[in-house]
Amino acid sequence: MRVEIWSDIACPWCYVGKARFEKALRAFPHRDGVEVVHRSFELDPRRAKGDVRPVLAILAEKYGMSEAQAQAGEDNLGAQAAAEGLEYRTSGRDHGSTFDLHRMLHLAKEKGRQDELIGILFRANFAEERSLFSEGDERLVELAVEAGLDAQDARAVLADPTAYADAVRADEREAAELGANGVPFFVLDRTYGVSGAQPAEVFAQALTRAWGERSPLPAVEDGGADACGPDGCAVPQR
Amino acid sequence: MRVEIWSDIACPWCYVGKARFEKALRAFPHRDGVEVVHRSFELDPRRAKGDVRPVLAILAEKYGMSEAQAQAGEDNLGAQAAAEGLEYRTSGRDHGSTFDLHRMLHLAKEKGRQDELIGILFRANFAEERSLFSEGDERLVELAVEAGLDAQDARAVLADPTAYADAVRADEREAAELGANGVPFFVLDRTYGVSGAQPAEVFAQALTRAWGERSPLPAVEDGGADACGPDGCAVPQR
Repeated sequence: MRVEIWSDIACPWCYVGKARFEKALRAFPHRDGVEVVHRSFELDPRRAKGDVRPVLAILAEKYGMSEAQAQAGEDNLGAQAAAEGLEYRTSGRDHGSTFDLHRMLHLAKEKGRQDELIGILFRANFAEERSLFSEGDERLVELAVEAGLDAQDARAVLADPTAYADAVRADEREAAELGANGVPFFVLDRTYGVSGAQPAEVFAQALTRAWGERSPLPAVEDGGADACGPDGCAVPQR
Repeated sequence: MRVEIWSDIACPWCYVGKARFEKALRAFPHRDGVEVVHRSFELDPRRAKGDVRPVLAILAEKYGMSEAQAQAGEDNLGAQAAAEGLEYRTSGRDHGSTFDLHRMLHLAKEKGRQDELIGILFRANFAEERSLFSEGDERLVELAVEAGLDAQDARAVLADPTAYADAVRADEREAAELGANGVPFFVLDRTYGVSGAQPAEVFAQALTRAWGERSPLPAVEDGGADACGPDGCAVPQR
């Protein structure tokens, strides 16, 4: 079974939701038969690279609230994260474009290191004192290397703004086609969706339900085709 | 869209079918939106490692035919392969256990090199004079390196017979659940199956049909969940 998770690195509920999903997955009896794929979703796709601002200032501006109110919201999020055993810095965080992060996640997917990298990026954005956005490209290269990627490969992606750009946009288009207008968004075997950072119990139920409904294919094109089976191969007639 | 292909390296119709599928895929307008995953299927799962025999002798024995009749069958297969632009040695080939090949393909999947490796293995088995089965592990290490894998990683897999063994068996179990009793077996988005090395036109139709029926999810668990969207994030109530 395959679980696709659309998320953005700048999305606190994605950080929390991933932990809740993983809690359900660890307890799921068929966990070894579950493959997880991370998909791109930018919450703020028009933000330019290098346009980095404090999270609290952005929140205050966006919701027309005071910084104290924004801080209270972050404190609440921090408590939700803590309840999942996650570190969460409730002040001093930056916000910036996540496009390069998503491009790097597609490189990581190709190299079989996607799950490592997304965990490292979430941690770098939400838990670490250093800013993920304001130190420039080398910070991202450093994190990519930590995830097991090659520094040269990572630098090549950053140097070419078209690298994996279509892959990011294809993920986003697909999210829209599937009806997702927010993240995190979980899709199980293209059969069930779970929207938002729901409790682990909801993910557990969705896993069980989707697993139980894995069914033989409705339509197989066959008709005496050329194939090999345990008893040997069809012999072609010329 | 995702296409899963179950095949065995010792299966001539898998070699031919892959070429026919790829011909259809190259001409498919949405080919950039198609991801291909190779899955394991052993035609001869009880064959022990190191039990290597000439293909013609095995065919003759299995079908109770003369070696000349077996040779005629191979000649016919060679003609089908040639029609797809594939090299195919119609005599002198060996047959052996493919379990290690499948384990290596799972390593390659993890490293993003699966498509490269399966092409190289098919070629090594069907087109090259050297035997894929009788030279021992270092031959497979060599081919893995050719596919872009690390020699140390490849040797570690071969040295540990449990490495990716469950992944191979999980693929085989899944094939059975999907109703496949022979290979190649193609599954498009878990919606349509194509059994056997069908003509490229059949694959083209299946791709078009499966692409057209990609549909929004039937059921999304939502209910005012904690999520972030373009307008911001839900604020948790404590």
